[in-house]
Amino acid sequence: MTSTIKTAAMLAIGDELLSGRTKDKNIGHLADLLTVAGIDLKEVRIVADEEDAIVEALNALRSKYTYVFTSGGIGPTHDDITADAVSKAFGVPCLHDPDAMKLLGDMYAGRGLEFTEARQRMARMPEGSRHIPNPVSTAPGFIIGNVHVMAGVPQVFQAMMAHVIETLPAGQRVLSRSIACPFGEGDIGTALGTIQKAHPETSIGSYPHFDGQRFSTELIVRAREQAIVDAAAADVEAMIAALRSEKDAAAKRDLGTGEVA
Amino acid sequence: MTSTIKTAAMLAIGDELLSGRTKDKNIGHLADLLTVAGIDLKEVRIVADEEDAIVEALNALRSKYTYVFTSGGIGPTHDDITADAVSKAFGVPCLHDPDAMKLLGDMYAGRGLEFTEARQRMARMPEGSRHIPNPVSTAPGFIIGNVHVMAGVPQVFQAMMAHVIETLPAGQRVLSRSIACPFGEGDIGTALGTIQKAHPETSIGSYPHFDGQRFSTELIVRAREQAIVDAAAADVEAMIAALRSEKDAAAKRDLGTGEVA
Repeated sequence: MTSTIKTAAMLAIGDELLSGRTKDKNIGHLADLLTVAGIDLKEVRIVADEEDAIVEALNALRSKYTYVFTSGGIGPTHDDITADAVSKAFGVPCLHDPDAMKLLGDMYAGRGLEFTEARQRMARMPEGSRHIPNPVSTAPGFIIGNVHVMAGVPQVFQAMMAHVIETLPAGQRVLSRSIACPFGEGDIGTALGTIQKAHPETSIGSYPHFDGQRFSTELIVRAREQAIVDAAAADVEAMIAALRSEKDAAAKRDLGTGEVA
Repeated sequence: MTSTIKTAAMLAIGDELLSGRTKDKNIGHLADLLTVAGIDLKEVRIVADEEDAIVEALNALRSKYTYVFTSGGIGPTHDDITADAVSKAFGVPCLHDPDAMKLLGDMYAGRGLEFTEARQRMARMPEGSRHIPNPVSTAPGFIIGNVHVMAGVPQVFQAMMAHVIETLPAGQRVLSRSIACPFGEGDIGTALGTIQKAHPETSIGSYPHFDGQRFSTELIVRAREQAIVDAAAADVEAMIAALRSEKDAAAKRDLGTGEVA
């Protein structure tokens, strides 16, 4: 079963994400897509537009996970250094790709715009890369090894990922069941831990929500086989029902009505 | 000058951030706070609720940056393993802290709730930690070495950070000027690269925005001294003005009105 498990990491690149100027929207989008595709997103890193930081993070991630997805730093300005950094990480030259030059040259010619030196920067990629098409603004992303390099602008990132996700062999999807629990984690924690131990092939997540007054919890049971999810979910639901009965009984006692029907 | 530069990293912990169930809100909040405080957020990592992943990431980050801030995994359930993982990273035991036990015990007693084994888990922290107060839901975060461990629920994370940020000596704040540029990066990239080279003490960021039809750009000039920001910003503004004149002249020529007043 483990042979079909695919893992992934994301590397989001950009000073603006670390200064607070831009609130990242690509991580959550990628997480949603990969979950549906049955690929486990295991780690995300955000680094600045600094070559050493990008190279170090990329080499750490690409050696560890099946796929790496990057966002940001492939535009035409001096701070767009992702293509150079990825080339350095792979130890190959960063070149003006002839197909990308033609694609961009034709597009700008059609729009009556000069194909400036800055715009030509967007055709640069590590030698040996394949393109990721960009239906929004033409300048392609690229794939080298297990690394998928995409734009940071969310509309472009999403369009590129819509293509990429179709090209990846789907993994064995993690199945999940979400169970709303009206009680806080402090009420359920011990019993839930016991259920987790009794169902070691599941991963049971507990996600507190605070509405400004009190906590409730969303419980998510995950496993790769339906029967395993179902068995653990049944125990979780029984635990919530038992706790509800117990709390109702306590409330009646507090009201002095414990003995009436 | 470099002696006053403080750096930071964030480690966001939680399966739910990697599955897409929860879209992180803490990274952007921390980035905003640190920027105002003059502390450079240099790297963010998101990892799952897995001890080895947390230990590895935490040890990498705490040895590299002045401060580390973590979010998530300090609740009462079995998947809240941050206190254990941080203890392991520091090589110290994870204990029920007496002050935290009293704080939580008193709070639950006051609310007429049982101080369950699960709730007592929230008093566990690495030996030698100091508390981070939690005005929202009592259970404290903690500080050990240069690592600040906080809750993942945004209201609680924000309340904890509001306290923490006051305790950190402010760094020398990075000053910035934002300049709206109506042109895309392809139009300005080469000239902007020249300006960046002429002002090596600044960092000039170029942030494309796509409105569905065309790109515009926000340019941000950053430096630690006002005069340095001002000089580079003046050059950026002159570049935009020159490009605007050029485009206006070209538009007039296209309309065949270039010769009339």
